[in-house]
Amino acid sequence: MLDYQAPLRDMQFILEALAGLERIGELPGCEDASSDLVSAVLEEAGKFAAGVLAPLNPVGDRQGCRLEGERVSVPDGWQAAYDQFRDAGWIGLSLPPEHGGQGLPKLVSTPVWEMWFSANMAFAMLPQLNVGQTEALMIAASEEQKAIWLEKVVSGEWAATMNLTEPQAGSDLAATRMRAEPTDGGAYRLFGQKIFISYGEHELTPNIVHLVLARLPDAPPGVKGLSLFLVPKYLLDERGEPGPHNDIHCIAIEHKMGIHGSPTCTLSYGDDGGALGYLVGEPHTGLATMFVMMNEARFNVGVQGVALGERAYQAALAYARERVQGRDIVTGEVGLPILAHPDVKRMLVSMRVRLMAMRGLLYSAAGWFDLARHHPDAEVADKYRRYVDLLMPVAKGWCTEVGNDLCDEAIQVFGGMGFVEETGVAQLFRDARVITIYEGTTGIQANDLLGRKILRENGATLRELIADIRETAGQLESHANLGGLAQSLHDQANLLEESTDWLLERRADTADLYAGAVPLLHLLGIACGAWQMARLALVAQAGHEQGEGDAEYLQGLIELTRFYMATQAPQAYAHGHTLRHAGAVLARFPEGGL
Amino acid sequence: MLDYQAPLRDMQFILEALAGLERIGELPGCEDASSDLVSAVLEEAGKFAAGVLAPLNPVGDRQGCRLEGERVSVPDGWQAAYDQFRDAGWIGLSLPPEHGGQGLPKLVSTPVWEMWFSANMAFAMLPQLNVGQTEALMIAASEEQKAIWLEKVVSGEWAATMNLTEPQAGSDLAATRMRAEPTDGGAYRLFGQKIFISYGEHELTPNIVHLVLARLPDAPPGVKGLSLFLVPKYLLDERGEPGPHNDIHCIAIEHKMGIHGSPTCTLSYGDDGGALGYLVGEPHTGLATMFVMMNEARFNVGVQGVALGERAYQAALAYARERVQGRDIVTGEVGLPILAHPDVKRMLVSMRVRLMAMRGLLYSAAGWFDLARHHPDAEVADKYRRYVDLLMPVAKGWCTEVGNDLCDEAIQVFGGMGFVEETGVAQLFRDARVITIYEGTTGIQANDLLGRKILRENGATLRELIADIRETAGQLESHANLGGLAQSLHDQANLLEESTDWLLERRADTADLYAGAVPLLHLLGIACGAWQMARLALVAQAGHEQGEGDAEYLQGLIELTRFYMATQAPQAYAHGHTLRHAGAVLARFPEGGL
Repeated sequence: MLDYQAPLRDMQFILEALAGLERIGELPGCEDASSDLVSAVLEEAGKFAAGVLAPLNPVGDRQGCRLEGERVSVPDGWQAAYDQFRDAGWIGLSLPPEHGGQGLPKLVSTPVWEMWFSANMAFAMLPQLNVGQTEALMIAASEEQKAIWLEKVVSGEWAATMNLTEPQAGSDLAATRMRAEPTDGGAYRLFGQKIFISYGEHELTPNIVHLVLARLPDAPPGVKGLSLFLVPKYLLDERGEPGPHNDIHCIAIEHKMGIHGSPTCTLSYGDDGGALGYLVGEPHTGLATMFVMMNEARFNVGVQGVALGERAYQAALAYARERVQGRDIVTGEVGLPILAHPDVKRMLVSMRVRLMAMRGLLYSAAGWFDLARHHPDAEVADKYRRYVDLLMPVAKGWCTEVGNDLCDEAIQVFGGMGFVEETGVAQLFRDARVITIYEGTTGIQANDLLGRKILRENGATLRELIADIRETAGQLESHANLGGLAQSLHDQANLLEESTDWLLERRADTADLYAGAVPLLHLLGIACGAWQMARLALVAQAGHEQGEGDAEYLQGLIELTRFYMATQAPQAYAHGHTLRHAGAVLARFPEGGL
Repeated sequence: MLDYQAPLRDMQFILEALAGLERIGELPGCEDASSDLVSAVLEEAGKFAAGVLAPLNPVGDRQGCRLEGERVSVPDGWQAAYDQFRDAGWIGLSLPPEHGGQGLPKLVSTPVWEMWFSANMAFAMLPQLNVGQTEALMIAASEEQKAIWLEKVVSGEWAATMNLTEPQAGSDLAATRMRAEPTDGGAYRLFGQKIFISYGEHELTPNIVHLVLARLPDAPPGVKGLSLFLVPKYLLDERGEPGPHNDIHCIAIEHKMGIHGSPTCTLSYGDDGGALGYLVGEPHTGLATMFVMMNEARFNVGVQGVALGERAYQAALAYARERVQGRDIVTGEVGLPILAHPDVKRMLVSMRVRLMAMRGLLYSAAGWFDLARHHPDAEVADKYRRYVDLLMPVAKGWCTEVGNDLCDEAIQVFGGMGFVEETGVAQLFRDARVITIYEGTTGIQANDLLGRKILRENGATLRELIADIRETAGQLESHANLGGLAQSLHDQANLLEESTDWLLERRADTADLYAGAVPLLHLLGIACGAWQMARLALVAQAGHEQGEGDAEYLQGLIELTRFYMATQAPQAYAHGHTLRHAGAVLARFPEGGL
């Protein structure tokens, strides 16, 4: 079994040095987030993740879930762990205090969620749904609905789900068919089938609150005819307690390659007269609300990328330090661990640098969420809201792709022992494979980035971001020994600038452009990673110059940044070349050539 | 379940246009390989692969193998399929006629093995071992040994294995501990444990012939003290038939992420007085002979890369043509299959072009094997032997890495349906994960390429290859509409040349260089792929100009080549940059930075 230790040093360093924890803690509503409190929260979460959740991860993989009749059983230990998790108040960490949450900034909850996902992703998907659902209800639910449902969801007394996908409606929600018919009492009766519903059925909680996309009888076609309904598994009795079973039935669970501990359900609504549900928000505006929940989920899936990568890295590093094999390529010495081989060291440093780059981007983005929500200056808040919007598809798309790469590389470090299941890295690799798919595939993220986030606003926010990157490059120039890094970062900024110009000039050739959407996403991800690494190097250099901190750790950060520029940054050029040249070939590629 | 259809058109095209089937058929000893016969063989193999082996592939994955006592059971249908496979004479296709084989060139057997691996890799690993073992015995066994064993191995009446790995000796065979003690009768008694032995135990055949690396009592330490032994599961009686059970016991089988249909065994030798075995070749020369077997196996593992990629591509293309989702990004039309989305088309064309590039390289290399073995002009034979030696680690390392990428991309095309096991692409993805590991990891291949194949001969063969690539680039220049491709290929040649110069200049900085070994392997793989694609484009263009062939297919090949230059070729630059810049950072990277 793989051990897990929360990387507290890296987390704290990035929180403070890159993501501006101090600044966030000064925002109105975020005053609780003192450095001491944050340290205590992270330490406590680290213990829970390592001690309770991590040991259950292989159990979940081996046992999986079972459907017996309509009853879904989850792995041994899930119930006890959930009870502890809920009772410790972890679900409400960043949720509204007025509904029982602790109201800490997203910046603080982000590393905590990273830990849950590192320790046991299949488990952590359950409480994650409560967070997303709370965000959606906060925006769209009536005060009465909030009063009835929110406290239970925030505390985790009841579980939550999101119901979007149907067999014919996957990436394309316009094809949704689920119907909702009004009843005399103001509620609705729902009919139809939803698939791929994570934790759609289980008995871990006395009730499950489903948020369901469906169409009203007068709905216009397409996504503008989708309404959102709250549909509980058990209807509430007069005391607000779970009463009769609603007309929702789990008719199948998926046999998946990974995340076996998480039941993926097919839910049938309305086989027996209709499942009773309640409209949330205005008719036909369901998608917008669901997007709130989905955006929350997308960011969290990006965090899953770094989380699984971190667990894989820890496993690979431990193995590379322990496994003795071969002789030193220079000295011929035997009896050394494989970490002494240049290629194994290359793999581990390459994993670590990508972890730090991803974490730099994700935690910075978490801070931008908080600034957008809480900053008193509307202009500042708006800037960071736009940054979040622009980079959300990158946070999701790039970090999940890289997360998969890291799990893959960890197996390579393990060699044959990585391919057998007992070492546990194979599970990480299998689990990770879903993250570039769910909550919108990488292709969907890339289309969103290109169309809604860049072209629609003529690249305005992207240019603002490029200016910020150049500013960091300028700061690097003032340190003699970081000059090479300054040039590398300027190069990335130039590449981004040229790519933006090219996109805007060619915006009429839609098909060509969209063929380059995924390369564009990678390019922007790599460039943002370079930016964050450069910021890390600046802080490390300042620490050096002031004689503060652990000199070896700080030197490691500077060398990591150099390694990033030598190995990751050049890939941005390859993606840039592909962006500019592949679309035209693809557009004229003959069908018969496939 | 996934259908499989042998890609006969592509195979034949590459055999004839790139790999020189006609020229090979004129070599002494290869005269049987007429175009008609080859077509008939491929067609027959395609039927067997699609009709018999492919349907068993998911069965093998679901059922896996079981160890009960010392008995290993294989999946349902394995026995009947093996009996048919053996009776049809497929095992001896390219093996020596004097021992019952058909003696066809390797060029002909290569696409046939591609089909077996596409259809059912876990199954095809069994007969593949007979081919490798035959090659080894042909080189090192005594005439008496050949007479006793070879006919049974060539026909497949008995199965074969290779026994290298021990718990402490994986990539590092110098650490091998298995002992062999001489007996009075001239045979040896073996003691020790071997792990990761594919098809180490089963009852598909009445005997199993193990080739085992072990140490004689007077063996020097390290790899120069390894001897090779033939150790049968059942000792032969006076009639040469399987008699008493040898002292070999299967004590465990691995629980693996993929290739569940192939039992991976831990074999214990000599628990009861010693397993009787026979020395093959001279004492202490076992590794050289085993390398013959391993080189055969490495080439075949490269073929597994293209084979699994082909199966994944076929699945993804079929799904992309059938699955309706979303609206056309330009026209807004609905009801179109997802292949109409630029990003999905990008993935499929990108899969196809890499398949063709890999196949071009592998089939060309198969032809070089034949030229090296059969060409009457010693200088020509020598050139191609050196080409084979140089590119074997690339054929194995690059094609397996790319094969994994293709299986990964196929899952992405399937989206959520790729993550559930029922569609079958998840199996391909899991199965493929072993191919960059077994028979030497990508890192081991890369070290071999850099050290033994480039530095040791001062890059001589590599420069010869670069000259060949430049010649192809020169030929492209003479076609007006292929001029862009000529430039791209020249660029690849320049990059190779500069990288070679750099390596040779820096050869004293061993640790730095080896940190770049894997990037170098990728660089050379991509450049060789570019070369093969350029050769395909030349042939296609000639066909166009002469009005021969299927114009759409030929145009597809030219556009594929353009697509390769737009998407794959630029990655070679990124690897070149990494090669030159990462090693120095890595060499000084502080341990505390990990």
